[in-house]
Amino acid sequence: MRTIRVGLLGVGTVGGGVACILARNGGEIARRLGQRMEIVRAACRRPDNINAEVKKALAGASIHTDAMEVVTADDVDIVVELIGEGNGVLALIKSALSAGRPVVTANKALLAKHGDEIFALARKNGVGVAYEASVMGGVPIIQVLRESLAANRIERLVGIINGTCNYILSRMRLADMEYEDALKEAQELGYAEASPELDVGGIDAAHKLAIMAAISFGTPLSYDSVSTEGIEKIRKIDMCNAEAAGHRIRHIGVARRSDAGLELRVHPALIPSSHLLASVDGVMNAVEVVGDAVGPTLYCGAGAGGGPTASAVVADLIETARTMTTSPELRTPGLAFQDKAVNALPVVPLDNLASEYYVRMMVTDKAGVLSALSSIFAERDISIRMVTQHEAVDEHGKVPLIFMTHEAVESNIRDALATVEKENDMASDVLRLRVESFSE
Amino acid sequence: MRTIRVGLLGVGTVGGGVACILARNGGEIARRLGQRMEIVRAACRRPDNINAEVKKALAGASIHTDAMEVVTADDVDIVVELIGEGNGVLALIKSALSAGRPVVTANKALLAKHGDEIFALARKNGVGVAYEASVMGGVPIIQVLRESLAANRIERLVGIINGTCNYILSRMRLADMEYEDALKEAQELGYAEASPELDVGGIDAAHKLAIMAAISFGTPLSYDSVSTEGIEKIRKIDMCNAEAAGHRIRHIGVARRSDAGLELRVHPALIPSSHLLASVDGVMNAVEVVGDAVGPTLYCGAGAGGGPTASAVVADLIETARTMTTSPELRTPGLAFQDKAVNALPVVPLDNLASEYYVRMMVTDKAGVLSALSSIFAERDISIRMVTQHEAVDEHGKVPLIFMTHEAVESNIRDALATVEKENDMASDVLRLRVESFSE
Repeated sequence: MRTIRVGLLGVGTVGGGVACILARNGGEIARRLGQRMEIVRAACRRPDNINAEVKKALAGASIHTDAMEVVTADDVDIVVELIGEGNGVLALIKSALSAGRPVVTANKALLAKHGDEIFALARKNGVGVAYEASVMGGVPIIQVLRESLAANRIERLVGIINGTCNYILSRMRLADMEYEDALKEAQELGYAEASPELDVGGIDAAHKLAIMAAISFGTPLSYDSVSTEGIEKIRKIDMCNAEAAGHRIRHIGVARRSDAGLELRVHPALIPSSHLLASVDGVMNAVEVVGDAVGPTLYCGAGAGGGPTASAVVADLIETARTMTTSPELRTPGLAFQDKAVNALPVVPLDNLASEYYVRMMVTDKAGVLSALSSIFAERDISIRMVTQHEAVDEHGKVPLIFMTHEAVESNIRDALATVEKENDMASDVLRLRVESFSE
Repeated sequence: MRTIRVGLLGVGTVGGGVACILARNGGEIARRLGQRMEIVRAACRRPDNINAEVKKALAGASIHTDAMEVVTADDVDIVVELIGEGNGVLALIKSALSAGRPVVTANKALLAKHGDEIFALARKNGVGVAYEASVMGGVPIIQVLRESLAANRIERLVGIINGTCNYILSRMRLADMEYEDALKEAQELGYAEASPELDVGGIDAAHKLAIMAAISFGTPLSYDSVSTEGIEKIRKIDMCNAEAAGHRIRHIGVARRSDAGLELRVHPALIPSSHLLASVDGVMNAVEVVGDAVGPTLYCGAGAGGGPTASAVVADLIETARTMTTSPELRTPGLAFQDKAVNALPVVPLDNLASEYYVRMMVTDKAGVLSALSSIFAERDISIRMVTQHEAVDEHGKVPLIFMTHEAVESNIRDALATVEKENDMASDVLRLRVESFSE
């Protein structure tokens, strides 16, 4: 039985997970693949920090502190990059590809920003770059979009693609917590970083959305075109108001192709409580993909963590081993579409977006405020579907006022709310959330 | 650009769907595949019955009434079999494989019963048999189990895999209908056949479960070992009782590997309302797969219908085209595991199964009945967790009595209920349902 020799860069949570899976499930994998898979070299800056279980799993590998030694070693068939951003990782991947080594990576930030360059180099060298682990952990959304739904013209995808945001929003709803407390709890449990901006600000979700959009529509990677909003301004009161209106608040990514072009946005939104995505709680991720033939299909699972992410990395290793003899021009292209068929689509400006909206603000509890607000909305063609004024007065003598609008144009909503905020003392703490409809 | 020439057997709902997808999305598919895909020959017993849209999509194909002519034609690269059971379909597939043609099929009944023979012949001839469309329509569960989760030791899968059953049970709950009325509605809408036994009796689900189990665990196809129960005995009152107990009734398939062996069962069950599967309504299918590394992942979508099923067929065509130059020994094996690595596991007898149970019966409303029943249960080590007696008396002077048990052994439950049914006049209309726990 042939052995596939793996060079592993990075022995952290995911890298260690890969080593453990190959040690534990090596027999089961060989039953499927008909080949053995073995880590022959591993790169790690502080080998003394490798934990005991991983050390045992790597017993047969030589450990390097210089990752470049692994990349250029003659006895490595596939390079696995699990170092993360920075640390010269782009140079490492380029060296591996230039040396004709296929690469498996989980590095969504790197792919979202440098993917076009990386895939071009891979193509030139006739080798693949696999990246299932970069989006949704162990849920095989990349394979679904690149291969399983390839018969379809993919119309849109909507999903919960950041576990940290979903954990915080779930806890705010289910445990009646304020944002700051839920964030703190997430940090204590290791679901959020000490500097959580990448997650709660929506940047991580934007990286993932850019990758999924490219392989759904055959467009170049367009990370810079993703409109990105985080969850920092959501309050407990918004969870209750959404629930009362038959919705739940989720942080979602939306990529959608229409006659007007490409919609790429990441933001918190109200989604109908009856939609499956509304039932996805905690650190779980879920994406609904709509294809013209298959209709809506949904994929759900743990979006992060050593085991799930390593599961995806090893699936990529197996797939890479399987296609080694396949003519390069017959392999599924890195970004799913033939290089010459990739077409940029115009990105639809958010200002043109039509959506229903949820608006929450704190207003002074005095006569005329509701009337003044209503006029500002009406003048901008925004029709109100529901308004709720709560009794609770806060320490500044203000009360929460909630609007749900009929479909309105984003630029009009922005303009209305900017006007409201400019009026002295009329309203503060203004929050606007889209209501995602899931219809065409 | 090269053209892949397809021979299509069967131009019904799914076959017509394949023709329409290739006509409509041919450009998008070529953007991905780098090759064109064209139906050059189609077999159909009554060409005059082909509908206008499909006829247009097949404009470039020659139409045959003898399917064997398509199978043996020199200008066919891949044979797609969408005829259904009977009609000499096994002979057609064997002829195609013997002639060195790869085959794509949606025929779950054929594969569940003759799969081992079919895959052996395919292997001998160095070609593949692809069957994504045989389970869950357009949801790529076959690719997930064969490839995406290949890093895992798959522990179990639990799913809603028959859309007819799920539609009927959903309508019974949501529209407060009795079984017979919901079935009639399903038949009117085309979701159930005039002779619905294959679906409502669980046989179709058993075919699908047998296929999924083989590729999850590396066992031979074991359709005959699947314990199969249908939904015919479920009543409206059971939906209400389940709901009151925090559960919903679904028809599920369960395949599970434990130290004791393989569990293979298809039956209605109570599942916790909080589980995602409980939110999957109507004709949708959903399967949760648990792997040792990835944990639980869930896949959901339309389990039948021309578009979704054809989407899976075309994905198989694309994949077959992609792997034509791949060394046969490197392709993913038909049943996911290397031939020599396939191992039969002992099938766990249902009698040994431990589960919580829901029991409903109609009892005579007189003193001593509850006491007598309780003794029968206690003598067989069945501990009652909850009992509800309803007031409503039926035309025979009987009232519904509901038990929920703690974990008990199936053989004891069967024995207890057989004893109850033997006692003159004690109880009638006895129904027992498992409560699926989703824990290890």
